[in-house]
Amino acid sequence: MKALVFDNELKLTDNYEKPVPKAGEALVRVTLAGICNTDYEITKGYMGYVGILGHEAVGVVEEVNSEDKSLLGKRVVPEISYGCKDPACTWCAKKLYRHCPNRHTLGIWRKDGVFAQYFTMPLETLFEVPSNVPDTQAVFVEPLAAALEITEQHHIKPYEKVIVLGDGKLGLITALALHAQNLDVMLVGKHQNKLDIAHAQGVKTTLLQDLKIEKIYDVVVEATGSISGFETALALTKPRGTLVLKSTVAASKEFNLAPIVIDEITVLGSRCGQFPPALRLLESEKVDFSPLISGIYSIDDALEAFEKNKEKDTLKVLLKM
Amino acid sequence: MKALVFDNELKLTDNYEKPVPKAGEALVRVTLAGICNTDYEITKGYMGYVGILGHEAVGVVEEVNSEDKSLLGKRVVPEISYGCKDPACTWCAKKLYRHCPNRHTLGIWRKDGVFAQYFTMPLETLFEVPSNVPDTQAVFVEPLAAALEITEQHHIKPYEKVIVLGDGKLGLITALALHAQNLDVMLVGKHQNKLDIAHAQGVKTTLLQDLKIEKIYDVVVEATGSISGFETALALTKPRGTLVLKSTVAASKEFNLAPIVIDEITVLGSRCGQFPPALRLLESEKVDFSPLISGIYSIDDALEAFEKNKEKDTLKVLLKM
Repeated sequence: MKALVFDNELKLTDNYEKPVPKAGEALVRVTLAGICNTDYEITKGYMGYVGILGHEAVGVVEEVNSEDKSLLGKRVVPEISYGCKDPACTWCAKKLYRHCPNRHTLGIWRKDGVFAQYFTMPLETLFEVPSNVPDTQAVFVEPLAAALEITEQHHIKPYEKVIVLGDGKLGLITALALHAQNLDVMLVGKHQNKLDIAHAQGVKTTLLQDLKIEKIYDVVVEATGSISGFETALALTKPRGTLVLKSTVAASKEFNLAPIVIDEITVLGSRCGQFPPALRLLESEKVDFSPLISGIYSIDDALEAFEKNKEKDTLKVLLKM
Repeated sequence: MKALVFDNELKLTDNYEKPVPKAGEALVRVTLAGICNTDYEITKGYMGYVGILGHEAVGVVEEVNSEDKSLLGKRVVPEISYGCKDPACTWCAKKLYRHCPNRHTLGIWRKDGVFAQYFTMPLETLFEVPSNVPDTQAVFVEPLAAALEITEQHHIKPYEKVIVLGDGKLGLITALALHAQNLDVMLVGKHQNKLDIAHAQGVKTTLLQDLKIEKIYDVVVEATGSISGFETALALTKPRGTLVLKSTVAASKEFNLAPIVIDEITVLGSRCGQFPPALRLLESEKVDFSPLISGIYSIDDALEAFEKNKEKDTLKVLLKM
């Protein structure tokens, strides 16, 4: 089958072996997939991963290796990690497969990803897509679930002020997702054209240069992926407020931890989320991610798509199989 | 009056003007005071403070500028900050004076401290010491309240594993305080003689060199004040666990924030605490801080006491007025 593989370098191949579903797994034919910055980080060495890239996808179940055939022929999206399923594993018992110490993660850790014609995943990680949600929206379910994860980890009260830093796709999706939950959200960025996407859907926005830096926000979401963004986030967080750290920055830099202690700030690391709430939000049609699509490329042009993804003005690049 | 003043250098004087209590304030005659590492940090420039040092004290109320004379003649301890008392200030309304943006803090910020024969503070910041608690225990109320602050900010469940890093006074007081609340606490340090103090009161202890570094602790308290301590703390925190940051380290150093996101760790900055729970614990006699006293000096020997405080083996140094 066709696949985009990373093995010290990015390679497009058309004779990768088609995977065979193990017991309890399904074979999914990919229809649409999304490129994430984590994919790009992996090509720079993040996680030391080797294999098929990609973890954001929509597809159709073509085969099921289980007596339960309920998903056969259905359009599905895969949660990105599966766990050990050991009855003693408290993470698997809570369906928090992404924290299972023996997990496998699509295109990131010990598991071939979705930038290919087919992938396999255990049935419990696959979720049917509601019929009113097109592939071009469903392909955003993984980053949307990651945005909603914030509200799973932390109770944001209706009267609290939320500010999201960064108008890249992570910041935009987070601001749209929190706004869709009726929270009081402000999105801050450096690009008026990107801010306009959120503003058109009702989110308050402001350019960073126009933002008054004051410690008045209850919840600050750092989605710039830069240490200067983290420092700005600290300067905006109210004493005893919460700074949500969303981006896995591979870089590191000096900074002083004392402000966290003095203002008793909670820094909350936040990664992936569960899919059912994200699918519910997509089904409600209260968010529209189509303005974030910067291009749809055939898998045959995957290398070109990766180049497009690196461009400054690009938001989401999709791959069609 | 006698006072230990910091003004670019540490100076002992015997003609500092005795303070006069304003409306709503009391004049307190200091009997015993404690030197904290923050005092030492201030002498290196922390907070840019100039004035009488010191924020840990016990004393007797000698004058009250208020119709409410209930504290007159009583033995009291002062919470270290007072707020603006503006009815619109949500921090003051919650008695969280330490977060009021217009606060004054004893010996740290815009308010003369307690290393003197007298200090003044608003009545609402003074708490009577229970009769069974000697001055030598009561003088620990401020760091004890700071330790108990952790349980005000975060709900530690009875089945959770807590580990405290650092066997200096901050770590010892924190481990003793959490253990006294029937929590499952392990104290880690590099000094067997210091660990023994906690062990003698029932706390589990281990030398750092004997500790297995694994991500199994629900709550990790960083009380070493070093970045390497912070890194060890991250390596011990369970996914989705809480790392409590206790020490205001003035230094800074490179490190990678990604592990906080990948394991969805909560980093909780924690500073001072309210006094009533700390006084209740002292009254119960379930903790004994006397083994932490490394020396009691007269105010006349305060400079010598400060030198003693710098020694590696020193825990708490007290000043007698």
